[in-house]
Amino acid sequence: MQYIKPLAKLIEQLRVLPGIGPKTATRLAYHILDMDMDKVQALVHAIVDAKEQIGFCNTCFNLSDTNPCSICSSAHRQADVICVVEQPRDVAALERMHEYNGVYHVLHGVLSPLAGVGPDDIKIRELLLRIQQNPIKEIIMATNSTIEGEATAMYIANLLKPVGIKVTRIAHGLPMGGDLEYADEITLAKALANRQQI
Amino acid sequence: MQYIKPLAKLIEQLRVLPGIGPKTATRLAYHILDMDMDKVQALVHAIVDAKEQIGFCNTCFNLSDTNPCSICSSAHRQADVICVVEQPRDVAALERMHEYNGVYHVLHGVLSPLAGVGPDDIKIRELLLRIQQNPIKEIIMATNSTIEGEATAMYIANLLKPVGIKVTRIAHGLPMGGDLEYADEITLAKALANRQQI
Repeated sequence: MQYIKPLAKLIEQLRVLPGIGPKTATRLAYHILDMDMDKVQALVHAIVDAKEQIGFCNTCFNLSDTNPCSICSSAHRQADVICVVEQPRDVAALERMHEYNGVYHVLHGVLSPLAGVGPDDIKIRELLLRIQQNPIKEIIMATNSTIEGEATAMYIANLLKPVGIKVTRIAHGLPMGGDLEYADEITLAKALANRQQI
Repeated sequence: MQYIKPLAKLIEQLRVLPGIGPKTATRLAYHILDMDMDKVQALVHAIVDAKEQIGFCNTCFNLSDTNPCSICSSAHRQADVICVVEQPRDVAALERMHEYNGVYHVLHGVLSPLAGVGPDDIKIRELLLRIQQNPIKEIIMATNSTIEGEATAMYIANLLKPVGIKVTRIAHGLPMGGDLEYADEITLAKALANRQQI
């Protein structure tokens, strides 16, 4: 024997989490065994509660414990400006700046022919339906600046061109506070191409 | 709002784990929300089962789901050789080499006057009782080679001297496969002082 069975099982289960290798899983398992029972219960309940209470908003497909979510149902937000993102965590990142006042649409992925992800596998159809049923002024494409993210943004922009809706893309350039000297070539080229009059 | 409440709570609970900062906790939380419900259940059950089924062996104080533990109750192990370690994970490390055939005694700490840990706070009394009640040939001190570990080993050795039991200390020296050039001075000095005839 190396580890007793319940401990070996706990280590094995912790290893399914991202970024948790065998050593970290073992350290976490020993820590959990050391914790007070009520603290372990609190952790377990937080996991189960989050899993049971959180679903998707039927409008924007962001994670939510209400339907529609608090952003879609807010009277203070501009419902005619939709920011399209890849994942729920992108919504959290944008909300963190407290600047954006429109609503969101979460695609839950990007187009990726190599990984077998086509337009029907992400929430594009739902976006089009939403645009048909509501008066929309602007769609902001905020997918990541990866090849797949760019392609997805272009694909959706092309779909919406005939509809006559303004589609914009978030700016790419030098990060604020970043040194020009340390910027990679692609970011630098993008920053130069996107220069604006001051 | 930045995170919906059940998600914020899950992130907060994951942060109590060692080495899990806010970013990792957030990544883990999103991953858990993405997991299938049965996989989450398996994780939760592994945590609860480990916590409920694992206690301490009343003889050696190692973590165990039986009492006495499988090592203490094994007919194949030498019950008269006790290896004294600081923590249950040290037993796991020693068992991994499949070489040691004696039994263990887990102190659950080391003497540390600065941290207010005295002889009564770790399982020293239990070790003495065990030695009184059973015929013991040898005690191997395998505490870590920190100041506290060394002091604890010396303290126990001094207690056992009058009893006339052989007390040994695991060897410290150059790690196998290690380069002499890169060894630290203290290890090198120890390796030289502990040299043996070949």
